[in-house]
Amino acid sequence: MSDVEKALTLREVLEVVEGLYPPSTAQSWDQVGLVTGDLDQPVRRIHLAVDPTLDVIREARDADADLLLTHHPLLLRGVHAVATTTAKGAAVTDLVVGDVALYVAHTNADVAPQGVCAALAEACGLDASEPLTWSEGQPLGRVGDLPEAEPLHVLVERLAGRLPATAGGVRVSGPPGAMVRRVALLGGAGDDLFDAVRSSGADVYVTADLRHHPALEAREEARGAVPYLVDAGHWASEQVWLPMAERALLDALGEDATKVDTHISTVRTDPWTFVVGASEGGMP
Amino acid sequence: MSDVEKALTLREVLEVVEGLYPPSTAQSWDQVGLVTGDLDQPVRRIHLAVDPTLDVIREARDADADLLLTHHPLLLRGVHAVATTTAKGAAVTDLVVGDVALYVAHTNADVAPQGVCAALAEACGLDASEPLTWSEGQPLGRVGDLPEAEPLHVLVERLAGRLPATAGGVRVSGPPGAMVRRVALLGGAGDDLFDAVRSSGADVYVTADLRHHPALEAREEARGAVPYLVDAGHWASEQVWLPMAERALLDALGEDATKVDTHISTVRTDPWTFVVGASEGGMP
Amino acid sequence: MSDVEKALTLREVLEVVEGLYPPSTAQSWDQVGLVTGDLDQPVRRIHLAVDPTLDVIREARDADADLLLTHHPLLLRGVHAVATTTAKGAAVTDLVVGDVALYVAHTNADVAPQGVCAALAEACGLDASEPLTWSEGQPLGRVGDLPEAEPLHVLVERLAGRLPATAGGVRVSGPPGAMVRRVALLGGAGDDLFDAVRSSGADVYVTADLRHHPALEAREEARGAVPYLVDAGHWASEQVWLPMAERALLDALGEDATKVDTHISTVRTDPWTFVVGASEGGMP
Amino acid sequence: MSDVEKALTLREVLEVVEGLYPPSTAQSWDQVGLVTGDLDQPVRRIHLAVDPTLDVIREARDADADLLLTHHPLLLRGVHAVATTTAKGAAVTDLVVGDVALYVAHTNADVAPQGVCAALAEACGLDASEPLTWSEGQPLGRVGDLPEAEPLHVLVERLAGRLPATAGGVRVSGPPGAMVRRVALLGGAGDDLFDAVRSSGADVYVTADLRHHPALEAREEARGAVPYLVDAGHWASEQVWLPMAERALLDALGEDATKVDTHISTVRTDPWTFVVGASEGGMP
Amino acid sequence: MSDVEKALTLREVLEVVEGLYPPSTAQSWDQVGLVTGDLDQPVRRIHLAVDPTLDVIREARDADADLLLTHHPLLLRGVHAVATTTAKGAAVTDLVVGDVALYVAHTNADVAPQGVCAALAEACGLDASEPLTWSEGQPLGRVGDLPEAEPLHVLVERLAGRLPATAGGVRVSGPPGAMVRRVALLGGAGDDLFDAVRSSGADVYVTADLRHHPALEAREEARGAVPYLVDAGHWASEQVWLPMAERALLDALGEDATKVDTHISTVRTDPWTFVVGASEGGMP
Amino acid sequence: MSDVEKALTLREVLEVVEGLYPPSTAQSWDQVGLVTGDLDQPVRRIHLAVDPTLDVIREARDADADLLLTHHPLLLRGVHAVATTTAKGAAVTDLVVGDVALYVAHTNADVAPQGVCAALAEACGLDASEPLTWSEGQPLGRVGDLPEAEPLHVLVERLAGRLPATAGGVRVSGPPGAMVRRVALLGGAGDDLFDAVRSSGADVYVTADLRHHPALEAREEARGAVPYLVDAGHWASEQVWLPMAERALLDALGEDATKVDTHISTVRTDPWTFVVGASEGGMP
Repeated sequence: MSDVEKALTLREVLEVVEGLYPPSTAQSWDQVGLVTGDLDQPVRRIHLAVDPTLDVIREARDADADLLLTHHPLLLRGVHAVATTTAKGAAVTDLVVGDVALYVAHTNADVAPQGVCAALAEACGLDASEPLTWSEGQPLGRVGDLPEAEPLHVLVERLAGRLPATAGGVRVSGPPGAMVRRVALLGGAGDDLFDAVRSSGADVYVTADLRHHPALEAREEARGAVPYLVDAGHWASEQVWLPMAERALLDALGEDATKVDTHISTVRTDPWTFVVGASEGGMP
Repeated sequence: MSDVEKALTLREVLEVVEGLYPPSTAQSWDQVGLVTGDLDQPVRRIHLAVDPTLDVIREARDADADLLLTHHPLLLRGVHAVATTTAKGAAVTDLVVGDVALYVAHTNADVAPQGVCAALAEACGLDASEPLTWSEGQPLGRVGDLPEAEPLHVLVERLAGRLPATAGGVRVSGPPGAMVRRVALLGGAGDDLFDAVRSSGADVYVTADLRHHPALEAREEARGAVPYLVDAGHWASEQVWLPMAERALLDALGEDATKVDTHISTVRTDPWTFVVGASEGGMP
Repeated sequence: MSDVEKALTLREVLEVVEGLYPPSTAQSWDQVGLVTGDLDQPVRRIHLAVDPTLDVIREARDADADLLLTHHPLLLRGVHAVATTTAKGAAVTDLVVGDVALYVAHTNADVAPQGVCAALAEACGLDASEPLTWSEGQPLGRVGDLPEAEPLHVLVERLAGRLPATAGGVRVSGPPGAMVRRVALLGGAGDDLFDAVRSSGADVYVTADLRHHPALEAREEARGAVPYLVDAGHWASEQVWLPMAERALLDALGEDATKVDTHISTVRTDPWTFVVGASEGGMP
Repeated sequence: MSDVEKALTLREVLEVVEGLYPPSTAQSWDQVGLVTGDLDQPVRRIHLAVDPTLDVIREARDADADLLLTHHPLLLRGVHAVATTTAKGAAVTDLVVGDVALYVAHTNADVAPQGVCAALAEACGLDASEPLTWSEGQPLGRVGDLPEAEPLHVLVERLAGRLPATAGGVRVSGPPGAMVRRVALLGGAGDDLFDAVRSSGADVYVTADLRHHPALEAREEARGAVPYLVDAGHWASEQVWLPMAERALLDALGEDATKVDTHISTVRTDPWTFVVGASEGGMP
Repeated sequence: MSDVEKALTLREVLEVVEGLYPPSTAQSWDQVGLVTGDLDQPVRRIHLAVDPTLDVIREARDADADLLLTHHPLLLRGVHAVATTTAKGAAVTDLVVGDVALYVAHTNADVAPQGVCAALAEACGLDASEPLTWSEGQPLGRVGDLPEAEPLHVLVERLAGRLPATAGGVRVSGPPGAMVRRVALLGGAGDDLFDAVRSSGADVYVTADLRHHPALEAREEARGAVPYLVDAGHWASEQVWLPMAERALLDALGEDATKVDTHISTVRTDPWTFVVGASEGGMP
Repeated sequence: MSDVEKALTLREVLEVVEGLYPPSTAQSWDQVGLVTGDLDQPVRRIHLAVDPTLDVIREARDADADLLLTHHPLLLRGVHAVATTTAKGAAVTDLVVGDVALYVAHTNADVAPQGVCAALAEACGLDASEPLTWSEGQPLGRVGDLPEAEPLHVLVERLAGRLPATAGGVRVSGPPGAMVRRVALLGGAGDDLFDAVRSSGADVYVTADLRHHPALEAREEARGAVPYLVDAGHWASEQVWLPMAERALLDALGEDATKVDTHISTVRTDPWTFVVGASEGGMP
């Protein structure tokens, strides 16, 4: 980026972002869009991350970023104060003091052609896929067939190799050698789509953040057979979207792409640091 | 047990069970007590498990059990049918056809002196503990001090060694070498007690079924310091209670203990079979 | 039925039943369909009744029935247990132990061409009728004209003669000699359709289970004139449907009809045993 | 009443009425108190009835009544208009035009020492009784023992003889010859007190307005045995209170009793005119 | 009106009124239509007012009015009594005793071509206008352009001269000399249409009953610029409709107009009597 | 304030503020406390205002204030973003960028001994007063007697002289010459305390932000007599508290008072700029 070039404004950059991920395609309960910043401020450096944590904001400020683009909302629940006495308040304060605009693309990013589910489908090895179900007029999740059937553990190992590493790794419910071909998937927490997964005829459901009761009830309903479950980790299953979003944004900026630098956060916001006693080989 | 002895009735056995785990101490949203069976049926064999899954029921029937005592409710949400077309209906049908009475002690078992939290506190290495908070007049969770401070990884390794093994193992958020002494805990899903954990001054919170957002928000609020988090697995964190419950029941039966056989289920109802890419050593 | 014939499965029988009374035509608050049983079990004897009471279930088991088809749901409100300590639980247990599948056709049976309202219209003497009103896209109740006007008491006496006898008989609000021709009707409890009845221009409304306040308010709104009210008894007004349902089922089974026996319950589930002081002649 | 005496004001009469039936003892959902009239108007003639129907109001106006005291509210549900296009509006208009004050004592009259339940207990033949249950700090219903056990039909015949006659008579669920002694009762609609009735150890429950499902479920729960049910008719079970209320009012007025005339309405507001096919003898 | 002419009935008059102001165009929360009276009563004198207060009713009775037509409902919230102990009850009683039918045209009068907003638009000096927004299929408020831009104080002075005088006068938020041309307006309380006002591009919003917080927040959102606010007083902003309604009614009656007299109430129902310390000149 | 003195921290100042106005005494729906800022920041200059508007914040920043203490919450309704595209977001951004901590004392300031109602009572001329009513255990409003009865206009003129001037002045409903002595009052919007005002026996109720319907209904209920109404303006009725709060704070700081400067905002946040057609003399 040449210094003599006039910087883009936040208004100009967001027009492009919202062309890729229109806010009107977000679910009604969601909170997407601009959280901090001024539409007239210049944007020269763009930082991308899954979560707007304090460490991510620090990283963005250290990198002189003007815009932080995240998947998860900072203020999904409304706040009545932004004093530094709460972590959310401290995050807002850090952003405002650091002149970092925060912009959120959440459920609207899930459903876009260059969105979270598309990136996860690619990581699973699907060449083509269709919506798993619909909600408020938008496609939720994807389902598609692998080029050919393969053992469950092969699918999972390929996926794990394409996702960023986490302490907990990828958890699987099903026999490692069972052959699977039809894959349903939803990035992030997917425990309310089991009915759609069963209707889709999927052999395996790749999602994340599955708790004991929903997972066990889904396995009971399957009576031990398909669909098997893969919990890829909430953060990891969405982080794969960041490179795709970065490319999509630069493409969409066209000639203006030369006016901005983009960076993908290297902060791992999966909360887990280490595990004890996990079993790669599987349980009997 | 001598064949000539007269068997205890279900009514008599439940009187003893409810003395240990009074239904009136369950939370108002919970569904505890007798799910299938007849108070006049004889009880000679008692089976104990965390979850009343189809495999557990099959195991109980194969063992000629008359009473299956579980921690988790089978019908927490009301049902309008028990046809075998649903897994819940198939479970009820199997129990009724097999003459197996199902009895649930859930949140009332959490709070009892010989309950889930007491068993988990013991597994953590706490000699003494007090209630973490109160709800509807009942103590929720426990908090106490280890005999002396120790590195976080030492605590977790001891705990992992005392819990039944699972595919996912025990996940930890915090530096392995950080010294901890004050431990808060709640068996099962504990993501709504973070306020109480912070108030308790705990260095580490041992619980289970923590999802991405609550765990990450708790870590943000902690600004990277205490309280650290340990997710011991929902099933594992409650399975430790079964031997304690078995002992308590036999003790409470007194002379009648000779009239019953008790067995702890060997079915692992943690839904996960294997993991790929977990990191024992921890993430940087 | 020849013993050498292969029995129909429950799945096959229900396909025919649901062709006559599609579950999708039930009201959203209703609970229809299969309550107990397994779709693969054989069905040789079918029992029909209004209410699945303990006596009706005993009668079905004594008759070796495989399928009990009732109008009223057993579990309209969800249950969390089916232990024999409650009457509902005892009923479920009796059905499951006796291998009797219970299937409910309730508001979907009300609206069908060969349904409850059609049977009651026939009993009233109506040759033709149209929907009284609509709810959730389904016709509720019927309204039509008698071939010619007749005194109110003549209509009621004919109706009483065609319904099964009950202790309370048929109650009427209106002058015995008043001439009526247009008849609105709804089997079972009809106290929320008074607006539709008034709009329909009916001279008399035949329904059941009318309590003091709704009945009196309807009479006040009528200022003593039409529409008059006839309370035919909840059970009696629906029992007339059983023979029609039996015929419809056998017709729809076609050649397979020879593979099943059908029986209509002889248990009267109207709760009243006798009355004291009723006035056939009417009050001044 | 001498013409030269100064008439009591409505304010003075209501002070006495509210001493007998304090509005503060009504249930929170109820609507008791003054519905039409002016506290300064004179009151010379008082009319008592169960329901403020148009016929009852006509009777009161024809009798030159200044105050109509009823058990049932006229406007239990709020109204937004009193035009004569609705029956409720016509009733209000008739009262206001006729200078008839309407005063309602409903659930506060149920619970009073000289109230509806006390009158019904007397009609049942109980010498003494205690509250059946409590709601919002007030006693609901009564339960007590007959001087000695007697056949169910004897109890019902005595009761029917003491209540005003109605077309439907008194309906009974239970064997005519069964011996009963402990009687629970609630005037008017009593279908939400079955739990209390069971706890009370009553042999029979005398109430009214029982619909098919609650009555049948109560009989199922009783497995054919006690408590039996008696449905005495809503109006009849409350009309017995009117003479008691009249006496109580005159007693409480003391010397002022000479200044008022009181009349009990002769209009039967039970909505039913005649029945066809009722069975005095009972059903098999 | 000739005495020998047969009077119109209320039914006939209301048919004409409802042709002008169809009740079906009222908002669903509203309570419009006939509040007191009988459709068969004769109507010779019609009284028009904004509020059915006790003074207005007295004025109507003194004028021998048969019909009082008001904008505001008397019983917007349902009532359970019309005794004179409450002001609402006293008003109903006065109307009924005085044989005055009360008819309300509220939100249906707001939206009509000859309605409240049309009258207020005329008073503002707008020749043409379009709906400001829509609700439940009806147009809410109006927006239009003045023939040419003019200072804010000129607009307000013209408006104040056309509205009836009140103690509080017309309050304005904005610089007196600011030039305005596009005017949004809503008679009565308009504090929930600010979003629509901003979208309309209006320079000024004429409405009433604006409280501190909504007004201040609207001014903050405007950052001191347009849209400015004019609070014309609730009563005054609706009273301008009465002459228009009177003309519309007489026109619509056609030949029957000779059978009725119409009068506009001279009672000012704006609650304020005088002010102290108001500033015509404005605050710095 | 000497420059060599160590500044107080925000934590230290708020401890004193919360001693005067404990947050626990705020109503449950309210949002009081710290909105922006860091407890460790130094506080040398304190600004006091009723509303945290953009102009007030600008004034505070221009004055180098570290703490802005306001009565009204900035974020009473939760927000999901603080970008400058909304006025609320711009206000938060201005505060954070300007290092101005915002602290709100709202309903807790209403009820305190040195609170809003106390200041308004003083402005009314009351020497002593007691709570008007209670809510959530806190006193709402005040009521007391003037030293002697005086004409209504005298009371209002004295009050108007003690309140800051506003465009709309003080509005009064009642005859100017009516004698009044007992005064009920509530600063800010008081339209939900009319029942308490009537019970208190007050001759006049001084409050603000009264809309047409509540004010008119209160006047109707009063039938033209007491209690009369005074609407003093929302901002003005609360601004009188600022000098009292300033004194209370300095007193409570004790020796530390020398370490802070305090200023009362000169920005008038009453939204109205001028009025046209107000009537000092009153309406006939």
